[in-house]
Amino acid sequence: MSADIKKQGTIWGVGLGPGDPELMSVKADRLLRSASHVAYFRKAGRAGQARRILEGMLQDGVTEIAMEYPVTTEIPLDDPLYNQTLSAFYEDSSAKLRALSLEGQDVVVVSEGDPFFYGSFMHVYTRLNGDCPVQVIPATTGMSAAWTATGLPVTWGDDVLSVLMGTLPEDTLVEHMTRADALVIMKIGRNLETVRRALHRAGRFNAAWLVENAAMPNQSVQKLSEAGQKVTPYFSIIVVHGNGRRP
Amino acid sequence: MSADIKKQGTIWGVGLGPGDPELMSVKADRLLRSASHVAYFRKAGRAGQARRILEGMLQDGVTEIAMEYPVTTEIPLDDPLYNQTLSAFYEDSSAKLRALSLEGQDVVVVSEGDPFFYGSFMHVYTRLNGDCPVQVIPATTGMSAAWTATGLPVTWGDDVLSVLMGTLPEDTLVEHMTRADALVIMKIGRNLETVRRALHRAGRFNAAWLVENAAMPNQSVQKLSEAGQKVTPYFSIIVVHGNGRRP
Repeated sequence: MSADIKKQGTIWGVGLGPGDPELMSVKADRLLRSASHVAYFRKAGRAGQARRILEGMLQDGVTEIAMEYPVTTEIPLDDPLYNQTLSAFYEDSSAKLRALSLEGQDVVVVSEGDPFFYGSFMHVYTRLNGDCPVQVIPATTGMSAAWTATGLPVTWGDDVLSVLMGTLPEDTLVEHMTRADALVIMKIGRNLETVRRALHRAGRFNAAWLVENAAMPNQSVQKLSEAGQKVTPYFSIIVVHGNGRRP
Repeated sequence: MSADIKKQGTIWGVGLGPGDPELMSVKADRLLRSASHVAYFRKAGRAGQARRILEGMLQDGVTEIAMEYPVTTEIPLDDPLYNQTLSAFYEDSSAKLRALSLEGQDVVVVSEGDPFFYGSFMHVYTRLNGDCPVQVIPATTGMSAAWTATGLPVTWGDDVLSVLMGTLPEDTLVEHMTRADALVIMKIGRNLETVRRALHRAGRFNAAWLVENAAMPNQSVQKLSEAGQKVTPYFSIIVVHGNGRRP
């Protein structure tokens, strides 16, 4: 029997960074170019942003594991069905990865941005950790690419930076927008109007920048006040810069 | 005369990431290995953390420009002399970089972490931008390395993350520590006792982790409550994880 005992494979949680493949870490680049198994999340029927970043990097014969969300915005976040549906999906995805690990396969599971900063990888990580060897590689966040794109440093001296999701209630947004020096607002998409109202109420609207597709070929950067009543992608990021100590 | 007109060199503001050279971006790695001029900040008389990360990467014959802080913690932050001294230092550093650019030299100016997220590069950036071509390359922050080192994701669902400096007044710390879901506290060093008291007052002390030397060979990770009354390096990072939506 002992000849059949295989060393368990490692699940690598690898951050891809904000979108430009050159902003991936040296370690992520090396792991991906030599990977036999690469897994990524995407919406069913789409190529997926993470997969797009990998284009041209993977070796011939790589096994790709597309983990396709059963739902994204079709069910409201506060409907219990949302959590149930996603929970079943993460259980299923984790089972697939666990099985590969038990077969002795290393699997590189990629995330846009940094794996432990919001995002989907964390939901398989918490289910696998303890069952399989898991290694996590931090990465450049989308918000770093966004504030870099504005051409202005985001935090100075003792500035407080608060990172807010556009999915929060308007009053919660206003409370934090009023108190922090620098702001990053993510998960905007259909919440843009709420975010816009909250920024007005907090007196920060005129200082806000809207960055779409940061670090990607179609990157766009503008003052939010000049963006008009447009629809913006879910992954857009709003940045309000701090004004701390500047010797 | 026209034969003497040189194309201005580019000042590259390159983030090195948190400390492990493998966490540098592919682009930073490439720029550094081919650079003719590399500039970095350090305390006089020290090798400097940024320079240490570059060890073994630079080509033979590279010109190194060490920009040495005239003061770090010797003058209190609220003494006008602190700002005057640092302002003169950044003017002088910027003048050196501007002169190289005018000679047609590209210069890679490195920062630990991400160049636009706290840190020193921003002070030369604001002085050079407009005079010279400047390109900024975002990078993995020290805080990403710190929360990755804890083995626990930092933000889930709609969690609010606030990034706080240990140099802030205790009451300001408490106010933000009470309201945010996830916390990162940086610039700790001699402020550890203030930060500790503030975390106690906000009811977050038992959830806090202390990460020293994240992503470096001497990395250490422990619950803050188990750290004792120790002295911790200036670049230590405290992490309190969020507890948002987890399908």
